[in-house]
Amino acid sequence: MATLKEFFKADHFAAEAGVELLEVRPGYARASMEVTEKHLNAGGVCQGGALFTLADLAFAAVANSCGKLTLSVTANITFLRPAGRGMVYAEAVEVFPHRRIPFVEVKLTDESGALLAVLTSSGYRKESDLPVEGLE
Amino acid sequence: MATLKEFFKADHFAAEAGVELLEVRPGYARASMEVTEKHLNAGGVCQGGALFTLADLAFAAVANSCGKLTLSVTANITFLRPAGRGMVYAEAVEVFPHRRIPFVEVKLTDESGALLAVLTSSGYRKESDLPVEGLE
Amino acid sequence: MATLKEFFKADHFAAEAGVELLEVRPGYARASMEVTEKHLNAGGVCQGGALFTLADLAFAAVANSCGKLTLSVTANITFLRPAGRGMVYAEAVEVFPHRRIPFVEVKLTDESGALLAVLTSSGYRKESDLPVEGLE
Amino acid sequence: MATLKEFFKADHFAAEAGVELLEVRPGYARASMEVTEKHLNAGGVCQGGALFTLADLAFAAVANSCGKLTLSVTANITFLRPAGRGMVYAEAVEVFPHRRIPFVEVKLTDESGALLAVLTSSGYRKESDLPVEGLE
Repeated sequence: MATLKEFFKADHFAAEAGVELLEVRPGYARASMEVTEKHLNAGGVCQGGALFTLADLAFAAVANSCGKLTLSVTANITFLRPAGRGMVYAEAVEVFPHRRIPFVEVKLTDESGALLAVLTSSGYRKESDLPVEGLE
Repeated sequence: MATLKEFFKADHFAAEAGVELLEVRPGYARASMEVTEKHLNAGGVCQGGALFTLADLAFAAVANSCGKLTLSVTANITFLRPAGRGMVYAEAVEVFPHRRIPFVEVKLTDESGALLAVLTSSGYRKESDLPVEGLE
Repeated sequence: MATLKEFFKADHFAAEAGVELLEVRPGYARASMEVTEKHLNAGGVCQGGALFTLADLAFAAVANSCGKLTLSVTANITFLRPAGRGMVYAEAVEVFPHRRIPFVEVKLTDESGALLAVLTSSGYRKESDLPVEGLE
Repeated sequence: MATLKEFFKADHFAAEAGVELLEVRPGYARASMEVTEKHLNAGGVCQGGALFTLADLAFAAVANSCGKLTLSVTANITFLRPAGRGMVYAEAVEVFPHRRIPFVEVKLTDESGALLAVLTSSGYRKESDLPVEGLE
């Protein structure tokens, strides 16, 4: 059986975007993505969908860190600063670890620690267990 | 000078995800994406970030259809049904075409017309003109 | 046993704000509120919380129109035009009538039909029945 | 000329709901509301609109603490725990103090410090000065 961290390597879309799950603990996860040419939109900055993908993987890791399958119901992302080339980090905190409807906040920052975007998301936690054993 | 439709071909991230801008008129845009293996998350359904990318391009097209550079400030996406392999369509309508803070709604549907997700987004419209001439 | 419409008369906060539930059918509800002096904020326009209260009652009516107790998990409201004195109407549509996590959209308009605000909300539907019989 | 704190006493709707602005500093505001019989909804807990009103006043205070008129464009509120009778507190932090589109997070807690709801909101900052002198 895989760990949670290994399980999320099967997220093809996130993997193709270069998202890496760096750390996952109960209630906390951290991921990164290097913004390169291929992440840019027509305006020459990182596409919102790329930032969302990074934030979504961090959400999924923390929301599933309890071992129960948890999906994103709704997510609200606010873009504060444009992201250029370079590393972007996502820190996800499960602010409210509810049995059914947990609430997670994800902050995206660049290498200098400047806040790029904030995502908040409500999840829906199912009865079924994830097919994982352990976190990292 | 390019048309708006051509301009958005330079969105590398959306292009790599297979997003195509099908139609753009003042106040309306439509885009598509074929969900394939590479769009799937660890749960075997289309990653939320891929759906967001499709919706974001449709947002950008309609929000910029007036010719002024318009960015997404905040976006709220609600996932209603998981999307499997196949075509997904995004229809974006500028519900409130404000001079500074327009409001756009995007609906994502699958081939059968079933609603997959709804995104609403507030934009910020700048004074500067987009370097485009015409829409399509 | 009361009807759903009667049940919501026990919403003290909405009643005090002058919210009236005009109509409720499966998947649809309509409510009104007259904006008077007491609804205004320090800027002289209708307080966002008053508009939210109106929208929330319309949400609650439509989300509970199936007879199962349904709560608001998260709501996103976008203010498009300031509301002055006069009638405001809320139309709520259950866009996605899910067994657990329904999704509702509420549009607020003034007497002239101008769109004032849009609220979208995800609910959480419990197993328990509402203590009501019939809708209106 | 009034201080900012005095200015917000003219928010009739918030005042009628019992909202009090306790503190306002650059980038931070705190407000309170006592939940009584009149704040309850048909389910016997504090109406979402009452909590929104409290959060909205705290948002307005912090967003206007720079002296420029700032309106709420869009607000996202997530309800985590039902609020019963008793005091509720709102702490608002301007997470991103942008010249045009600031971003604010408001946390609502009860007397025991338990988190009841989280509101995030993007504002729109105008050129015009508020008719106030000083904060408190």
